[in-house]
Amino acid sequence: MPPSIKALLFDVFGTVVDWRTGVTGEGEEFGRRNGLSGIDWAAFADAWRALYQPTLEKVRSGAMPFQPLDDLHRMELEKLLQERGINHLPEGEIDAFNRAWHRLPPWPDAVSGLMRMRVKYILGTCSNGNVAQMVNLARHSNLPWDAILGAEMARQYKPRPEVYRISVSLLRLQPAECALVAAHNYDLHNAAACGLRTAFVVRPKEYGPGVKPDLEPSEKWDFVAKDFNELAEQLGC
Amino acid sequence: MPPSIKALLFDVFGTVVDWRTGVTGEGEEFGRRNGLSGIDWAAFADAWRALYQPTLEKVRSGAMPFQPLDDLHRMELEKLLQERGINHLPEGEIDAFNRAWHRLPPWPDAVSGLMRMRVKYILGTCSNGNVAQMVNLARHSNLPWDAILGAEMARQYKPRPEVYRISVSLLRLQPAECALVAAHNYDLHNAAACGLRTAFVVRPKEYGPGVKPDLEPSEKWDFVAKDFNELAEQLGC
Repeated sequence: MPPSIKALLFDVFGTVVDWRTGVTGEGEEFGRRNGLSGIDWAAFADAWRALYQPTLEKVRSGAMPFQPLDDLHRMELEKLLQERGINHLPEGEIDAFNRAWHRLPPWPDAVSGLMRMRVKYILGTCSNGNVAQMVNLARHSNLPWDAILGAEMARQYKPRPEVYRISVSLLRLQPAECALVAAHNYDLHNAAACGLRTAFVVRPKEYGPGVKPDLEPSEKWDFVAKDFNELAEQLGC
Repeated sequence: MPPSIKALLFDVFGTVVDWRTGVTGEGEEFGRRNGLSGIDWAAFADAWRALYQPTLEKVRSGAMPFQPLDDLHRMELEKLLQERGINHLPEGEIDAFNRAWHRLPPWPDAVSGLMRMRVKYILGTCSNGNVAQMVNLARHSNLPWDAILGAEMARQYKPRPEVYRISVSLLRLQPAECALVAAHNYDLHNAAACGLRTAFVVRPKEYGPGVKPDLEPSEKWDFVAKDFNELAEQLGC
């Protein structure tokens, strides 16, 4: 009989918040403010996110030292703007757009589901986002985290095992007392390899209309739910 | 003109929560449960806290590797019990008493003051307590932290500068954008040396009736208040 679950650790980008809608909307405002026309900001958001795994892989492989995700985003953003011939903007404007990732909207069920789950479980983030991003996202949308854990604690990026392990050990729990909640099978696969329990939540709109995300569990996860309220139900909240 | 304050970082033991009342009460229950008589549990709490700085100093000086405060408390607790001839208790009982530090009552003004301050400021812990202690204290009393920062992030103990610095840098703020809130002049002195702003809150009952705590600011701190509600007022909340 496995120990009972005491903490839920959440992937955030895509699982708790809708980065594509948030970055697209902020891009549109950024474009208007700076007189940039002819840019498809949803495509820009997708292009930005497409740089995510290759950039993180540089850190994971040791080709680049650890830097908080804010700094990696900023580097990627400059590259994307330059590719579109945008070189003249003030630093403050670029910074402001980079902070779109601090103001992403939660999925509609996220806050109500978290509020239910928090009564019974410790809720922590186990994101590749840095602490400041997580704090600002939480303040923006009232996400009731008990602790911000994840990549910046390990100075390494998921799915490297250090990230799951340090998040668990900072809570002084056993891996099997924690469940990772994520919309991404690869994340759950790697958490399970560290001994964590797993909860898959489907986020069919994460990548917009054109791209198919993880719609089905790839393995036999401990919990599979269509949203956070259904997960709360399954977890007895 | 200094930058405006964006985050308040809190010392916790003594400043936010009343460790002496909490540990004394838990000691009395622990004594009853285990048939221990003739022990003055308030004196026991004082003796436990008296070991705090000497133990931390071993870590700060490098004589001992960093260990989370829970483990140091546990070591101290066994020593205190042995000194009183108590050697026969089950591990689970000793662990349960050690977790008294996870269930300390907040000072009467703490929660209402924090609730006011959180609207305008990011609230973080900058305690020597470990993450699990901070998370459990917060869940026990509804302390609305945005982030658990402090000693375990630096793997070093206050008043070593690393602890203040990492707490500030994890929020991606400048030191002068953060204020340390503490009932202890030495803590504020060392935070100020790292460039943080300072808020002194008097906690006259921290050490019980016999011992005088810091009743007066030893230097010209940025804010001096008699409790968290007065501090909230001064901070424009």
